[in-house]
Amino acid sequence: MTTGVTAPRGFRAAGVEAGIKDTGLDLALLVADETCAAAGVFTTSRTSAPPVAVAREHLASGRARAVVVNSGCANAATGPAGRADAREMVDLTARAVGCPPGEVVVASTGVIGVRLPMDKVRSGIAAAARRLAPDQGSEAARAIMTTDTRPKEASVSFTVGGRPCTVGGMAKGAGMIAPNMATMLAFFTTDAALTPPLLHRALVAAVGESLNRITVDGDTSTNDCAVVLASGAAGAPAIEGEGRDYEAFGAALTTLARRLAEMLVRDGEGATRVAEVRVEGARTEDEADRIARVVAESPLVKTALYGGDPNWGRILAATGRAGVALDGDRVSIWIGDVWVAENGAAREYEEKDAAAALEEHPVRLRIRLGEGEAAGWMWTSDLSHRYVDINAHYRT
Amino acid sequence: MTTGVTAPRGFRAAGVEAGIKDTGLDLALLVADETCAAAGVFTTSRTSAPPVAVAREHLASGRARAVVVNSGCANAATGPAGRADAREMVDLTARAVGCPPGEVVVASTGVIGVRLPMDKVRSGIAAAARRLAPDQGSEAARAIMTTDTRPKEASVSFTVGGRPCTVGGMAKGAGMIAPNMATMLAFFTTDAALTPPLLHRALVAAVGESLNRITVDGDTSTNDCAVVLASGAAGAPAIEGEGRDYEAFGAALTTLARRLAEMLVRDGEGATRVAEVRVEGARTEDEADRIARVVAESPLVKTALYGGDPNWGRILAATGRAGVALDGDRVSIWIGDVWVAENGAAREYEEKDAAAALEEHPVRLRIRLGEGEAAGWMWTSDLSHRYVDINAHYRT
Repeated sequence: MTTGVTAPRGFRAAGVEAGIKDTGLDLALLVADETCAAAGVFTTSRTSAPPVAVAREHLASGRARAVVVNSGCANAATGPAGRADAREMVDLTARAVGCPPGEVVVASTGVIGVRLPMDKVRSGIAAAARRLAPDQGSEAARAIMTTDTRPKEASVSFTVGGRPCTVGGMAKGAGMIAPNMATMLAFFTTDAALTPPLLHRALVAAVGESLNRITVDGDTSTNDCAVVLASGAAGAPAIEGEGRDYEAFGAALTTLARRLAEMLVRDGEGATRVAEVRVEGARTEDEADRIARVVAESPLVKTALYGGDPNWGRILAATGRAGVALDGDRVSIWIGDVWVAENGAAREYEEKDAAAALEEHPVRLRIRLGEGEAAGWMWTSDLSHRYVDINAHYRT
Repeated sequence: MTTGVTAPRGFRAAGVEAGIKDTGLDLALLVADETCAAAGVFTTSRTSAPPVAVAREHLASGRARAVVVNSGCANAATGPAGRADAREMVDLTARAVGCPPGEVVVASTGVIGVRLPMDKVRSGIAAAARRLAPDQGSEAARAIMTTDTRPKEASVSFTVGGRPCTVGGMAKGAGMIAPNMATMLAFFTTDAALTPPLLHRALVAAVGESLNRITVDGDTSTNDCAVVLASGAAGAPAIEGEGRDYEAFGAALTTLARRLAEMLVRDGEGATRVAEVRVEGARTEDEADRIARVVAESPLVKTALYGGDPNWGRILAATGRAGVALDGDRVSIWIGDVWVAENGAAREYEEKDAAAALEEHPVRLRIRLGEGEAAGWMWTSDLSHRYVDINAHYRT
């Protein structure tokens, strides 16, 4: 058994070395035995890449049979020629799988502004189609990696009408990770049966509590997407409305998406520490989330996290500049269980306790505003020397 | 002659080693011979520091005689005790100078969340008052530094009614520099005579074209302020309305503020390169500025700048995620004079020419949208290993 996208019944996958990257697996196929209900969510970028447009168009039907993904080249900022390349990837996959092109989802990740080496893509898709198997989900998870240091895959079980069902997934990220679909690709599969609108609703909800709450560098990418395919191969009753079965599926998908999100942020470029930033006592969830995001993205907070320095003043300063109206004299801050600031000012605490709290995994940073009852949160990684190393010479 | 705050007639200054920092000058006084017209602009942070509240209150009168500034401790997140400390700094200065407390402006910069060592502040203010002299502007400029590696001061000459006048200034910054008054303190003096409302208008305009357009790390501080004092000691006719004299003063103040802003960003924490990000062809100036800011604050753009990598794809990606509606297929990008992208896609260009453009000072990044006629700009520094070094262990 595999734990990723081929854990649910009805799916095969493959990952091959097409030669798009200098070395390593760089082309993945995910194919369902039958046409699936499907849904996707995409980057909000105004300079989104050609494959995003093609995938969005095809998923509008709510049906899909196959997903083709390459790493090493984002096929972004490539103009009309890039759109033609994305469509050719779709056509090649459709032909290899034996389905209409409209049932193929395409995604790319890697360097921006460079054309795909289509000769390599062509032979790669053919090779991947030959390797498709129900135990190759991990190879696919490896093939979608860019600066990731390890593949991310997981699966969660649940039941529908007493029948065991599974939701599985793979994701890639590492850099350019930020809320609202940053360079993050995530593919989910399930052998439960759902209508496309319900599948879409569950995906939006799951992503909102997971992938959209992680940030490595605040840079949202041109290529992000999260896609889910439901094969129905478990033989459980179809989920056609809200209720217990939908809740069971939604909970499993959210759990899976959170596991993958945590893997993504732990493998953030150069990350040595991961923190959960929690904001409580806000007037609205939106305001709580906005503050959590500003704190989570603050370079000063992130470098202090890297240095293991419980510099809560930077947390307070980031809280104050989030553009949310608040009374700074009511703010409390905790690092782990150490209550370091109250009413906007320092409390008496042991510096070594606060420093020790920065050694936890994840580090828990908690901010209480005293403005209302709403809460929000983000996961973030630290800003390390290695982050600078990785990104100063990414293309060279 | 000095070039900074004591370049205009009617001002004395001093910088002393009060012992707030471990070593070095850390307390500055700036005193006018007579009460001046005065104006200030302040941080937009909701967790602004006690001295900000006191300075804002005192400048509401439009009059000031003295400015007292300490470095090494921000007196931020210090609650009611911190407010009492800020007021005591004002009272001590007023007594030493011989003016009402309401004519004293106070500012602090340094670590957040720590009380001021008031015994040292008391003796420091007394010592500074004894050292006040019309040639000590440079000492004051040194005394307000935190992680700055060099003092920032400059002056600009202009004429009012045929009379030579001068505007001088000093600033500090280095980290926590971001638009809308980040940890940045700037103090301007002039021997021209203006009404307080005109002085305020000129200050807001000058800061909007200088200090509010620089970013090092996007972190806006709790303590920023920019203050201007006009002594009238040049003996030129008072500027009491808009017109040629007001324009001459405004232009000189803006030139001075831009010089100081450029010094600030060049001395940004760990900066090895400085870039001007210019956005053209936007629908509105506000949208142009928003895009320029997102590009200027992007960690991926800033690390590529550090690495000397002409990775324009990151510039395009940052442009697309700024929250401004635009057609990515109309975007052009230049690095220096090298036109690297057109219609959202790569042009043919020599990689070595683009790399050479990253060796210019400043690096010029230009983005043309094709949406309208408005333009905007920001200055930024790169994100280096040294930035991480400085900020991982700032307190320790």
